[in-house]
Amino acid sequence: MKVSVVKIGGNLIEDEADLEQALNNFAQIEGLKILVHGGGKLATQLAQKLGIETKMVDGRRVTDAQTLEIITMVYGGLVGKTIVSKLQAKQCNAVSLSGADLNSIQSVKRPVKDHDFGFVGDIKKVNAESFSTLLKAQITPVCCAITHDGNGQLLNTNADTIASEIAIALSEKYEVSLYYCFEKKGVLRSISDKNSVITDIDRTSYDKLIEEGIIADGMLPKLHNCFHALENKVQHVYVGSISMLANPNEQKTTLHLNEFN
Amino acid sequence: MKVSVVKIGGNLIEDEADLEQALNNFAQIEGLKILVHGGGKLATQLAQKLGIETKMVDGRRVTDAQTLEIITMVYGGLVGKTIVSKLQAKQCNAVSLSGADLNSIQSVKRPVKDHDFGFVGDIKKVNAESFSTLLKAQITPVCCAITHDGNGQLLNTNADTIASEIAIALSEKYEVSLYYCFEKKGVLRSISDKNSVITDIDRTSYDKLIEEGIIADGMLPKLHNCFHALENKVQHVYVGSISMLANPNEQKTTLHLNEFN
Repeated sequence: MKVSVVKIGGNLIEDEADLEQALNNFAQIEGLKILVHGGGKLATQLAQKLGIETKMVDGRRVTDAQTLEIITMVYGGLVGKTIVSKLQAKQCNAVSLSGADLNSIQSVKRPVKDHDFGFVGDIKKVNAESFSTLLKAQITPVCCAITHDGNGQLLNTNADTIASEIAIALSEKYEVSLYYCFEKKGVLRSISDKNSVITDIDRTSYDKLIEEGIIADGMLPKLHNCFHALENKVQHVYVGSISMLANPNEQKTTLHLNEFN
Repeated sequence: MKVSVVKIGGNLIEDEADLEQALNNFAQIEGLKILVHGGGKLATQLAQKLGIETKMVDGRRVTDAQTLEIITMVYGGLVGKTIVSKLQAKQCNAVSLSGADLNSIQSVKRPVKDHDFGFVGDIKKVNAESFSTLLKAQITPVCCAITHDGNGQLLNTNADTIASEIAIALSEKYEVSLYYCFEKKGVLRSISDKNSVITDIDRTSYDKLIEEGIIADGMLPKLHNCFHALENKVQHVYVGSISMLANPNEQKTTLHLNEFN
């Protein structure tokens, strides 16, 4: 049986019209599906309003206790419940989850080495059975970027990583397609040309694109997640805009485990 | 089959040690169970920090768009996910829900008559099937005081009412016990004497206690919900402290549909 795992990025969530369109397209996907979302700047905005400083180390957010509360409120509450209420209106029976819900995703607090990232969790186990229980009952899981350690502690975990790990865990039982949706049409050859989509990337061209500096910054971990998924039995991995969910012919980047000509 | 529906009040949630104890006792309940929680002063505190005025009409909170966002963050996010992560650590496999999740509780926005309460919902339908699906899979639903209208709008709904309506909906299929837990040991004859628990209340004594002014203020709607539940096939209804969950001999108030004594 097929399952689509769809990650929607922060920029799509912040704009009401974009979110509406993204959820329209998501709801139209036939068959079993799972949505993974971040919360992006909404958490930073709330932190600012509350006068809580956002600390970054190496471009990553440090999650202290106050920041974890904010993330739990914004990702787990505001964004998750808003998405689910909108999906219900589109006849998609959904439930919003953190990794603590149904014990769906357990993680381990990242050990302190050079830096202390605070309440950040590295995924230990995705509970495929929890997801199967929901999918079998025709329920669509909506997952936010929060996991738990099994001992009562919530932890902040990257949403791209959550999407790939869910896709991998479900690949033992299902034929899984993983979609990373963001504001661009795919991986771009030139950041200034929104139509310069690289339609296919395999391992060889991936290495070359990194070397050339075409894949850089935030695209590096995203594509790392893509290949990690392909190497662990996820059947199809795509990067592109939300339009690819509604239209299979839409321009996008398809990732390939094997050599592609 | 038996199901326990447990409502825990706002005061129990605000104090970390109280919440821990409440969840210990809840986790110990044998068999199928459902937890319903408010968020109490935590929402008011966040509103204050954000400089959003809390408007009250006839002792009730007016839920404007900003207040609804706060409630969704606090009840649906912070409180719900914190409770679930703590329950998982106690080997209780739980999932935190708003009424939008699994379409579990639909409501209708309260019509504007004398006052406009804003985004407040009166319950239209509890989806017993959604709860059954979870209970059958040994999953414990944790419900917050948020419902939805089915058209993409979240609505604020009283947690006591949610608890009684869930209990009623499940009574068609299960033998349901409804527990209202708060900081007191039960309905008190004298508010200044915490041990003056009225152990049994039936319709006749209820009317008398109202007349005498012993049941007043916040206890009025709570006891209204209790009798409403009993009149709609809920088998057992209790008001008391969280200790009653762990110890059946604990002092508490038992409500009776039929004449008592």
